[in-house]
Amino acid sequence: MADKRAIGVFDSGVGGLSVLKHLVRLLPDERFVYLGDTARVPYGNRSPDTVKQYSKECISFLLSHDVKFIVVACNTASALALEEIRDLSPVPVIGVIEPAVTRSLSSTRNGKIGVIATRGTVLSEAYQKSIKAMDKTQSVQVFAQACPLFVPLVEEGLVSHPATQLIAHEYLSQLAEDRIDTLILGCTHYPMLLPVLQLELPSVTLIDSGEVTAECVASELRRLSATSDQELSIDFKPDISFFTTDSTTNFVPVAERFLGWSIHKPQKVSLENFSARDRTADLSLTLN
Amino acid sequence: MADKRAIGVFDSGVGGLSVLKHLVRLLPDERFVYLGDTARVPYGNRSPDTVKQYSKECISFLLSHDVKFIVVACNTASALALEEIRDLSPVPVIGVIEPAVTRSLSSTRNGKIGVIATRGTVLSEAYQKSIKAMDKTQSVQVFAQACPLFVPLVEEGLVSHPATQLIAHEYLSQLAEDRIDTLILGCTHYPMLLPVLQLELPSVTLIDSGEVTAECVASELRRLSATSDQELSIDFKPDISFFTTDSTTNFVPVAERFLGWSIHKPQKVSLENFSARDRTADLSLTLN
Repeated sequence: MADKRAIGVFDSGVGGLSVLKHLVRLLPDERFVYLGDTARVPYGNRSPDTVKQYSKECISFLLSHDVKFIVVACNTASALALEEIRDLSPVPVIGVIEPAVTRSLSSTRNGKIGVIATRGTVLSEAYQKSIKAMDKTQSVQVFAQACPLFVPLVEEGLVSHPATQLIAHEYLSQLAEDRIDTLILGCTHYPMLLPVLQLELPSVTLIDSGEVTAECVASELRRLSATSDQELSIDFKPDISFFTTDSTTNFVPVAERFLGWSIHKPQKVSLENFSARDRTADLSLTLN
Repeated sequence: MADKRAIGVFDSGVGGLSVLKHLVRLLPDERFVYLGDTARVPYGNRSPDTVKQYSKECISFLLSHDVKFIVVACNTASALALEEIRDLSPVPVIGVIEPAVTRSLSSTRNGKIGVIATRGTVLSEAYQKSIKAMDKTQSVQVFAQACPLFVPLVEEGLVSHPATQLIAHEYLSQLAEDRIDTLILGCTHYPMLLPVLQLELPSVTLIDSGEVTAECVASELRRLSATSDQELSIDFKPDISFFTTDSTTNFVPVAERFLGWSIHKPQKVSLENFSARDRTADLSLTLN
């Protein structure tokens, strides 16, 4: 049975587009709804409770668009709110951390895995804990490095600027000394820097969490017999509806850099009506 | 008559500390209350209405600490909300834009003034409009350049990193070609980059808006006979109370880099009770 409903993808901003790109490539006959919570980006600075609250609102929004599957493309939300989101969602939910960790454990030969991410993700120890939990050998060493400048460098389009290479060298030389053989790119912006990173760590396997997450989504949809099986027209164009929560001016150029194709302006939406807290408040009013 | 009340300074984050530093230097016998609205930084991406709302809440907070003078150290708030803040405040309010513009107009010899700022400030045209409004000759040309990477570079402490010089060259070479002779640093973070900027533009007068704003505050306090005239002890320590609206972990190291001296952890506060909208809501409840 084909399931023609869309796949919902949410991120705190534009970074999730690097996940969406792989989803579109692997599942070209699917429809997608992408929500970027650009009014409240970045989630990395927020308290866990705030991230949970925001994530729930984003999920409620996606569910209101009748999606069949939800991809949490945001590392912070994947780290802090995945359980709460799964409790809320009647459809399957996948985050970006587990697929990347699984792949890293099957990829490493010397048991030394590196993780690069924003400061928030590194401090949350989400990857470190997940690797520890899933490592059957209990011998894998994890080396985490925060790379806070990578996001603004990518968003400013300086991916191949000499300054970016210098900063990459600054961030990665310790990981090279630690002799990692596998590196998880624990932030959705970082795949844009693949050539820069590979130049610093030439013999290391780089794991793009967006790519492996998209592979998981594709195999899970097939397992559930929930693919769309749409007829593809000859002039294939991805079927994606974009939504953001703040001004959409900057979104389009940055998004096009991430995706590599041109997009229509996203629709600006408010998540106020999707606030779980608000709904509880309404409910208590009704009950009183 | 001495006025022993504190001077209130607010910014969306840590940047305003570059203004505070000059205030402390020029007015060592004053007390200060500094509020960084770190939970909602940066203001530059917000809509004008949101910036006005946030600014009013910050001002109400400062006024609750019985300040005698308010310094809006945030460029975005100075650009978008100064009138609203002045309407709300019974004490004098000064922003960072006017003092810098005044100084740039008296400094320029060739009538070519450059402005570097965040993308939000450049797009708001606050400096461009203010220069046009205050330029009696009506012949000054303004060249504005957004430098979005400077803030994260400063916050990451890479002020003297070769990558920062490369990026400065990228941003400033057009201004050099435009032959500006005066450059306004239209973002409170940028004074940290003074040596880097001066190296790119060796014969240009750089105007630190925090410095000229502090000079204005000092002369205004004297004019109003509202200085504190406290006795300075021999082991002089600045008398500053710090408040932030989100996690205070990152604040201290970045703040100490800005100020050049060590500080105590700031107090985390909520601005919810200072929301003008909430007060109106309370009022309407009372009235009904």
